[in-house]
Amino acid sequence: MTGPSTVATVTPRAFLPESKLPAAVAWDGNAVRYLDQRALPFEIRVASARTADEIVEAIATLAVRGAPCIGVFAAYGVALLRRSIPEDAAFRAAAARVREARPTAVNLAWAVDRVLSADDMLAEARSIHAEQERVDAAIAAYGAELIPEAARIITHCHTGAIATAGGGTALGVILAAQRAGKRPVVYVNETRPLLQGSRLSELELRSAGVETILQVDSAAAISMARNAVDLVIVGADRVARNGDTANKIGTYALAVLAAHHGIPLYVAAPRSSFDASIADGEQIPIEERDKREVTHFGGARVAADEARAFNPAFDVTPHHLITAFITEYGVLRPPYSESIGEILRVS
Amino acid sequence: MTGPSTVATVTPRAFLPESKLPAAVAWDGNAVRYLDQRALPFEIRVASARTADEIVEAIATLAVRGAPCIGVFAAYGVALLRRSIPEDAAFRAAAARVREARPTAVNLAWAVDRVLSADDMLAEARSIHAEQERVDAAIAAYGAELIPEAARIITHCHTGAIATAGGGTALGVILAAQRAGKRPVVYVNETRPLLQGSRLSELELRSAGVETILQVDSAAAISMARNAVDLVIVGADRVARNGDTANKIGTYALAVLAAHHGIPLYVAAPRSSFDASIADGEQIPIEERDKREVTHFGGARVAADEARAFNPAFDVTPHHLITAFITEYGVLRPPYSESIGEILRVS
Repeated sequence: MTGPSTVATVTPRAFLPESKLPAAVAWDGNAVRYLDQRALPFEIRVASARTADEIVEAIATLAVRGAPCIGVFAAYGVALLRRSIPEDAAFRAAAARVREARPTAVNLAWAVDRVLSADDMLAEARSIHAEQERVDAAIAAYGAELIPEAARIITHCHTGAIATAGGGTALGVILAAQRAGKRPVVYVNETRPLLQGSRLSELELRSAGVETILQVDSAAAISMARNAVDLVIVGADRVARNGDTANKIGTYALAVLAAHHGIPLYVAAPRSSFDASIADGEQIPIEERDKREVTHFGGARVAADEARAFNPAFDVTPHHLITAFITEYGVLRPPYSESIGEILRVS
Repeated sequence: MTGPSTVATVTPRAFLPESKLPAAVAWDGNAVRYLDQRALPFEIRVASARTADEIVEAIATLAVRGAPCIGVFAAYGVALLRRSIPEDAAFRAAAARVREARPTAVNLAWAVDRVLSADDMLAEARSIHAEQERVDAAIAAYGAELIPEAARIITHCHTGAIATAGGGTALGVILAAQRAGKRPVVYVNETRPLLQGSRLSELELRSAGVETILQVDSAAAISMARNAVDLVIVGADRVARNGDTANKIGTYALAVLAAHHGIPLYVAAPRSSFDASIADGEQIPIEERDKREVTHFGGARVAADEARAFNPAFDVTPHHLITAFITEYGVLRPPYSESIGEILRVS
């Protein structure tokens, strides 16, 4: 496979609101534009995908990443292919290739199937995108009310517009507070091992005019001890019925530190992250990833080849360390078995 | 300046006891041998310094590092120069250059001055080295008694023989437990930003046959939550009279996590790290270092050039989070104002 055929000059309408950063995904009539996430934070590179090859490549090479973002991108992609490939069997084959561009992305298969079953495929893709924006906007609006003026905030990993193609979850809340004139100051945890904080969150927040301060993950404690932190806000990978929350490795340490210092910790997550089939955190499996994520750093080897490593991708934060969940249905407070139970009954 | 004139084949007598790793510093009659720490953990490179240029270069380029290790190395170096430079003024000038090879290393000036004021300079250098070994050995012996059989231990940063030219402090305790047949298993925190855990502690422990598991610093929490950790042991940069302890950034987070999980945290530190002039942690200044330690690694840029960073080199762990101090005078328990007061009166 080759690179994308077009590297577009960035046009204003493709930009995130009040940010210097282009939108993660945008439909432009003849192509699906996307922000090439592989080049971040060093280069703001916008590319266009027109063919099945280009759409599949963008997903497979992680140029487009973040589960909701992949779903939106693939939805537009399939709608585009429907226009450019008149022959039905050939179109179905191309759509199937897009659907399988990454094997484990649930949003990808879900979005492709939804578009394929619609009469107006482009309208359906637009709906998927609009729904994502509505959910993120609702989370941001509810969350921003919890953010005091000039709040000093710690966040971990990346939960922004780049990953959702909407407005983001935890970062969306911070950005909404910024738009409301609250001037938040954000300590961004670098988020070892994959450094999503250094690479993505720092950039996305700063591009929107938010004051950011990058720190190694373990420095969160000294920031808290110096009374320099008013609240912590993170996203969620999966939330159990009792509120136990799986999220990027380091979230649990941050939650213990926040509790120790009497600092509230908020989890911003859409209804779709709450898993009715899981009673508590004990039942959430924790993926262990390649040790090279620990023994290497930004491509450079930092430990001996013989070194063994423990590399859990996620950890589980018990519900009693979580002050509240911020969802598109509002702010959920303890007891979570009741408040989470309520939103689980919605759908 | 050029590189060291000799890269020696490693000889058995220069090895650390029961380790595959050469000693940090060794006198060999005609030269001062040292382990080139810049090449670790990828290459075990032993070099010899014979001239003032070579001695100064080894210190200035951080080939020899760790305050006590620099002191021992410089002591032997000055004794060697006394033999090779008969003319007194030239010798004094060469010794002065060694003394100033790094401006802020207290042990360096102290060791050079002590050797210069002795009649038998080599004997004095040997004394300095032997004293370091005795202090470290006493810490290791007292500490090993606190380590249960098959203990699962977290350690942070590097506090080993490579840094002291003795047996190390916190790592010395673990190695003594290993020699006593207790088979400890050690989770080594990588220790961002400078990765002393990945580069040095993992290697030094594994070279001595200890089972090691490297982890990102924030994964310490999940290891504790899984009941996979029996104790935490760290070194100290400086200890106040009340027991508040400055140590590598990340130590305080680890102490909060240990307390949350009911896991004991030990600080292994020689009498020389206890500062009688400092009443409590509030009075310990915290150095902030270059932001590039956070935004870069190993030459690789990991954040945008425009990113701001908070990069404290140390943090302060309050005394109530410390289970005990392990010193060459024995194990100090709370109330620390009394137990620390006792060892401060010794010298």
